[in-house]
Amino acid sequence: MISAAFTDLYELTMAQGYLVHGMDRPAVFEAFFRHHPFGGGYSVFAGLGPLLEDLENLRFLPEDLAYLEGRGIFSADFLSFLEAFRFRGDLWSVPEGEVVFPREPLIRVRGGLVECQLVEGLLLNRVNFQSLVATKTARVCHAAKGGRIMEFGLRRAQGPDGANSATRASYVGGAVGTSNVLGARLFGIPAMGTMAHSWIMAFPSEREAFEAYADLYPDATVFLVDTYDTLASGVPNALAAGRRLAERGKRFGIRLDSGDIQYLAEESRKMLDAAGFRDSFIVASNDLDEEIIEALTAAGVPVDIWGVGTRLVTGGSDSAFSGVYKLAAVDRGGGMESAMKFSDNPDKSTEPGVKEVYRIYDEAGQARADVLAAEGETLEPGVPRTFHHPALDTRRFRMTPCGEIRPLLAKAMEGGKRLGPPPPLAEARDRCKTELGRFDPTYRRLLNPHVYKVSITDAVRDLKASFLERYRAGT
Amino acid sequence: MISAAFTDLYELTMAQGYLVHGMDRPAVFEAFFRHHPFGGGYSVFAGLGPLLEDLENLRFLPEDLAYLEGRGIFSADFLSFLEAFRFRGDLWSVPEGEVVFPREPLIRVRGGLVECQLVEGLLLNRVNFQSLVATKTARVCHAAKGGRIMEFGLRRAQGPDGANSATRASYVGGAVGTSNVLGARLFGIPAMGTMAHSWIMAFPSEREAFEAYADLYPDATVFLVDTYDTLASGVPNALAAGRRLAERGKRFGIRLDSGDIQYLAEESRKMLDAAGFRDSFIVASNDLDEEIIEALTAAGVPVDIWGVGTRLVTGGSDSAFSGVYKLAAVDRGGGMESAMKFSDNPDKSTEPGVKEVYRIYDEAGQARADVLAAEGETLEPGVPRTFHHPALDTRRFRMTPCGEIRPLLAKAMEGGKRLGPPPPLAEARDRCKTELGRFDPTYRRLLNPHVYKVSITDAVRDLKASFLERYRAGT
Repeated sequence: MISAAFTDLYELTMAQGYLVHGMDRPAVFEAFFRHHPFGGGYSVFAGLGPLLEDLENLRFLPEDLAYLEGRGIFSADFLSFLEAFRFRGDLWSVPEGEVVFPREPLIRVRGGLVECQLVEGLLLNRVNFQSLVATKTARVCHAAKGGRIMEFGLRRAQGPDGANSATRASYVGGAVGTSNVLGARLFGIPAMGTMAHSWIMAFPSEREAFEAYADLYPDATVFLVDTYDTLASGVPNALAAGRRLAERGKRFGIRLDSGDIQYLAEESRKMLDAAGFRDSFIVASNDLDEEIIEALTAAGVPVDIWGVGTRLVTGGSDSAFSGVYKLAAVDRGGGMESAMKFSDNPDKSTEPGVKEVYRIYDEAGQARADVLAAEGETLEPGVPRTFHHPALDTRRFRMTPCGEIRPLLAKAMEGGKRLGPPPPLAEARDRCKTELGRFDPTYRRLLNPHVYKVSITDAVRDLKASFLERYRAGT
Repeated sequence: MISAAFTDLYELTMAQGYLVHGMDRPAVFEAFFRHHPFGGGYSVFAGLGPLLEDLENLRFLPEDLAYLEGRGIFSADFLSFLEAFRFRGDLWSVPEGEVVFPREPLIRVRGGLVECQLVEGLLLNRVNFQSLVATKTARVCHAAKGGRIMEFGLRRAQGPDGANSATRASYVGGAVGTSNVLGARLFGIPAMGTMAHSWIMAFPSEREAFEAYADLYPDATVFLVDTYDTLASGVPNALAAGRRLAERGKRFGIRLDSGDIQYLAEESRKMLDAAGFRDSFIVASNDLDEEIIEALTAAGVPVDIWGVGTRLVTGGSDSAFSGVYKLAAVDRGGGMESAMKFSDNPDKSTEPGVKEVYRIYDEAGQARADVLAAEGETLEPGVPRTFHHPALDTRRFRMTPCGEIRPLLAKAMEGGKRLGPPPPLAEARDRCKTELGRFDPTYRRLLNPHVYKVSITDAVRDLKASFLERYRAGT
């Protein structure tokens, strides 16, 4: 369990201030993000399960309290408050594996101002990282065009939890399994593996190494064929060892871990087929990401399984998801009022108030637009509506939703308790796959994708205009 | 404590194979890395402390064993072996905070082949990530030219441990403190913080928000001045609240979190100085990294403290350190023999055998070259030696070391037990700063730095040549 001291110091100094000034009144915060990572056209939400578990068990440990007391800035009253602190708020969220877009609330937290603030860092930490990895994996799976993805990143991940959380999130995003045994056990994900070069080097010959492995693991043998010379030695030895497996009715694979994957995969495939092993499979690994895999699959490379490590579990060149957590409404003493954050950069202003998110589908079941509505506002099929661009006053469109209208947020926690047991992780994985399939392929393109519409209703637009008016008037 | 199941599945399948075939004989592995992250000229080693703690306590949990039994591929004998498994090897390492270069061993592990392999993933995971962050932080500190660095990355880090480990490693690399309360407590690092925009928005006015904070925390007040208008509102309100602090003999700071940092810092500095607050300080934050900070400090921006988050704790565009772990020597039944890994890519071949690392200084105390020597080989001051480029046969140089000759590796663990208690983290931080100061500034330049020499002795070169000869002969 993570300690409640996993928070930024200013959350604690502000919390003490709010309590001293009697300001710990009801508030609503929303978590959303500003832009897709990897220059993509969609993101995949993940990390909710671990977050809910953390929140349900959140408390300050005796060591934390002793440490904070020693800082000399916290009163005995405040330390007692922290000692008794439990998260008692309500929480709504989009489900894990959901396809999500910038500006829309992914999580809504309603509680006292202090508890809402104290969980900010933990909440963002959990969902930012896992959403980054789930999104990356969905992109890699897209590039693999039906080829399977194994997560291989333990040794290059950002710390042990960076590895385990990435194992979890990559499964949500579409990986079929992981090399990480602990992660596989914790999250019920298939554990997979082949052999290392050191195995082959530890035997007198490559052939003996292959045969020893195949004898021990006849149901899960993948020969690593590049230790000496892939085509001159590795594949021929795999064929020899594979014949012994075939006699026992078993199939096998080979793994390419260096050199030109396209050339070696094509040549290996020919050799495997010529030897009658049409049911054998080819695994490729070695510093892969979605761009490299897409280039290879576009060229028709005969690879069945891709082992992806570093760039899958860390995000590679984009190492963080841009999630933020902002005040949507607060009771300043006279009842709940909507809040809005302004910024000179329009991109950094928030949509005001507590919001609903609806996804509108056409009659063929394809997603057409997401709409941010005011709290409690609903959309009716068959009723024409005007939707506005959230930042540009001049852009709007009128439409009559005539397919499914799906609310994305659902209540997941009430009074600090989860509503029901955590759903199986495979459900999130299935959702990701199914929901991505309901978007036009142009939105799923890896580079320069079509930009999916996230719009606001008249009600949100009007609320925004009233804030803007007051802001300009300087009040 | 991390479970021993935090490993790749193939380490377990290979381990069972080694045991079945009676191959669990003595072996030596070395961890090294291939290239500096961030296009830099040096790296900073970190992560040893947590690794040693993990190794000393490493074991398979009953849940792990039950899980592995359920896979159906492990024998009862092997599961008993895992149940009794403890890491009993010896370990040498460079100390944390050391400045390190590609190809040189950072850690040497000597033990049974099986235990050496089982810890591969954990070892690389721990030191790869913390070395990435320590290196990044050293670069950011360099860019700040004497300005202080605060680590602010909890909410964008890769999972909770990604945040805590980054807090630790950034301190080694030179940060003065962190916003992460739990990380600060766990590693004895100063916890720091200012206030969030939400604090200011929760009060009727910016001035009241500032005064309330200053009244509560007179010894640690930093006013966040960009919520409404930095120069028209934020700084004037900070001056007003600051006057009340000055009456109590306290100083204060302001924080800039948006807009053009150079313009706003210069104008704010003038306003602070004109009001007589020459001892006040300026903190800047907002998506910073070493390149942005260097551009600003080169322009003389009056910022005293930099709050750096996302790109410090994740590495930003370089999200992984390229550490690998390779067999250096193994007993194949006839005593210990040196090992070498070949690759068609010369960059991926290893230096053969167990190696020592020496850093050679000139008489002025500046580092001149690192040398990889054979195990037990020493270098003597005053004795001329020839050193070879590790990859290019034609490049060599002759020198007579006449300053300090410092071995970088020291024994840290024997029979699976740490030699002595963990040194204070501040020692690693001091080492990083001191040792970096012993390199010519051209090696520390952020972009296109001078390439520091890592060479091999005649003995290593000869060993390599004999491997190459046997390899070419196909044996």
